[in-house]
Formats: sequence, structure tokens, C-alpha cells
Amino acid sequence: MQIDPAALTQQQLYKILVGSVVPRPIAWVSTLNAAGQRNLAPFSFFNVVCPQPPTLSIATQIRGTDGLEKDTAYNIRATGEFVVNIVTEATLSAMNITSTEFAPEVDEFAAARLTPAPSIMVKPPRVLESPIQFECKLNQIVMIQNGPNNAPGGGSLILGTIVYIHVSDEVLLDNYKIDARALHPVGRLAGAEYCHVTDLFALERPGPPAPSTVTPPATCP
Amino acid sequence: MQIDPAALTQQQLYKILVGSVVPRPIAWVSTLNAAGQRNLAPFSFFNVVCPQPPTLSIATQIRGTDGLEKDTAYNIRATGEFVVNIVTEATLSAMNITSTEFAPEVDEFAAARLTPAPSIMVKPPRVLESPIQFECKLNQIVMIQNGPNNAPGGGSLILGTIVYIHVSDEVLLDNYKIDARALHPVGRLAGAEYCHVTDLFALERPGPPAPSTVTPPATCP
Repeated sequence: MQIDPAALTQQQLYKILVGSVVPRPIAWVSTLNAAGQRNLAPFSFFNVVCPQPPTLSIATQIRGTDGLEKDTAYNIRATGEFVVNIVTEATLSAMNITSTEFAPEVDEFAAARLTPAPSIMVKPPRVLESPIQFECKLNQIVMIQNGPNNAPGGGSLILGTIVYIHVSDEVLLDNYKIDARALHPVGRLAGAEYCHVTDLFALERPGPPAPSTVTPPATCP
Repeated sequence: MQIDPAALTQQQLYKILVGSVVPRPIAWVSTLNAAGQRNLAPFSFFNVVCPQPPTLSIATQIRGTDGLEKDTAYNIRATGEFVVNIVTEATLSAMNITSTEFAPEVDEFAAARLTPAPSIMVKPPRVLESPIQFECKLNQIVMIQNGPNNAPGGGSLILGTIVYIHVSDEVLLDNYKIDARALHPVGRLAGAEYCHVTDLFALERPGPPAPSTVTPPATCP
């Protein structure tokens, strides 16, 4: 089937995208608003940007109801700080509770019975129950707008620099490798679907081609 | 374990990030250089930005060997066009071949015995063997630099607007839903590891909290 995206509604485009770009990692983002109230919400439009400076990206959507940014984006604009907590099997139910669109003043840590642990370099607390937490400072927000006045469908791509890292010894192997089998991460698909990350396999890169046609291997392949 | 990222090498940071932000979706990106030569390479620092305008992000790394951008980023800067092909179980071996760091003039379509199919709105060909292909035009590239002169470790975050979509009928359900069970996607972990996306489950969002504390649900939750 060939599809001109201009002929689709925002929701139809959303369905194709969240069904095609899978499985997605989940960032569980804790922030404070300007008044110091806590917020915690999951986002799966999330990935690494680069290792040096260590940078993460999280895209949040403009709400269809009011054309405003989500509390998380609003708080990061106001304070310049957030923590990315990694979601695992053990925190899946709590993560799901925090996915509810609560009013800004609701503390999702309390709603989901999670423990806010003090951070070292930023003010928003970490999720103590998460085995990996990245304390981040805002680098920049790239707005992708759908017409004027932040119409629904657009997004705020938040880039954060990691300023401190907490890793549970239980998931850390030698020389900063993370043990995927001990971490028990969860992948996000479309709709209500997720995947367990249980069915692992290794795929070694093929050897380099003949020297006449190859550049030296990159440091970060 | 508490870690100050400033005390780690680029490779140590890379290991923590690729081991923690999992599972990652895989973009198989086809481009042309200014001379019209084809390139095809996989990237897992990949995600959705927003549905309207439909926007994808792909981060490529500055090479450790020469401080240059990868061929894919170089080509997208030169031509403003690329195609994101979705990697599935059936194309896993071919994808792995194209992950080799070939010289710029090598045609990875030929090296991996893939079929370049003409695109509708852009010049780079699609991977015919991929069940979902997004034709994209460059929106912008956000550079995250590690010091001056593009030192290794930094990244080029490429934002592309989807201008045409090809979806195989075999993976398309009604009203633009993608069938994850028919798609057979693959997730990227650290090192040589990947995951099959076979162990799916559903997690329904909890009902909205009491009306006094809730804003209306977003259009794109």
C-alpha cells in the first residue's frame, strides 16, 4: 500500500509510526515544576544521541486537548533539569500508573507508591526502584510545529546532557557493560502492547572487507 | 554505583548508554551521495519525534578514526533526502552485512544482495525487501559537539519529515494499525546483542482518576 501522509489524519499517522518504529525503549522522566512539585511520566520516543557529551533525546507530544506541552516538557523548560529512570519488569505496574494524565499538581511518586531519592547534581528526585538513573541538564528543545500556535500533532524534542549516573551493582558487569539479562528491560510497541526482552541473540558483525575498500573501524560502531 | 560521567572515557559512556537504553528500534537508512552512488546502513539511535508533521529522528556518530560524519549523515547533508526502511527478521542477515564500514563508493545494496526500488518523492531508493519504508526529506540536523573540530563522541541528530509511506499489506491491519506479530521486528541491545520481539503482552492504562484531579485525555496518549 502506498500512502501520501498529507492524506492521513494525525491519529492515523500516529498509529503507523508507533506500530512501525518498534520496539522502543522507555524513559521514565522525573521533574519538578517551578514550585517544586514532583512529576513522573513515561516516554517511549526516547533514545541515545551520542556518548560524549553523553546525550539523551526524549520527544513529548503537543496535547490534542489544549495545544499545550505535557507537564514534563513544561517543567524541563522551567527548571532545565530532569532525571531519566530506566523502566524494568519490576516497575512496570508503577510505570503504568504514572502514564495516567494526572493534573499538574498530582505527585506521581505518591500515586504509584514509588520512592523519590535525592539526586546529586540536579533537583528532581530519582526513582529509587529503578536500577539505572541518569541525572540530566537541558541542552536544548527542538520544536517541531504543526502549523501556528502549537497545533496538536507537533512535538518537543528534548535533548539532555547526562551529568550524573546511578547504576545498580546487580546490572553492572566489568568495564561498564550493562547485563541485559539482569536488567529485565521492557520494550514499547503500539496501543496497549509491550514486549519482554527475553528472546536475545547475538549477531557478530561480518569481518571487514578487503583492505583496499575499507576505512578503519570506528571507535563507536 | 555512582558515576561522574566526566570521569569516564567515551567508550565507557557508550557502553553504559547502549546497555541501558534498550531495546532500540532499527532504521535502515538508504541515501545517495552527490554523485548518485547508493548507500545503506543501520542505525539504532532512532525514534519517532511526532506524528504531524510526521517526523523521525536518527542520530549518527562522529567517527573515532577521522572525526568525520558517517556516509549517511554526509549524504543527507548533501542531498536533503533519505529513506528509512524497517528491519525485520527476514532482512537481519542483509542488515548485518550493511553494518560493515565500507568505503563511501561501495553500494551496500549490491554487497547485501538487496533490491533498490524507486521511491516516489525522493531520489534514494527503498529496500524492496523491507515491509515498511518511509521516504523522508531533511528537516534539520542538530549537532552535539564534543569540543571543537567535531571530536569523536559527538553526534549528528538528523530530523526527517516523512513525505511518502510504503506499507506491505501483510503487516497492515484496519485503520492504519501495524500488526506487530506479522511485522517480526528486531530490537537492538548492546554489543553484538539483539532481541526478537516475540514475547508480547498488553498493559491497559488505568482508568482516569477522579474528575476533580484530571485533565481530559490527550488525543495521542
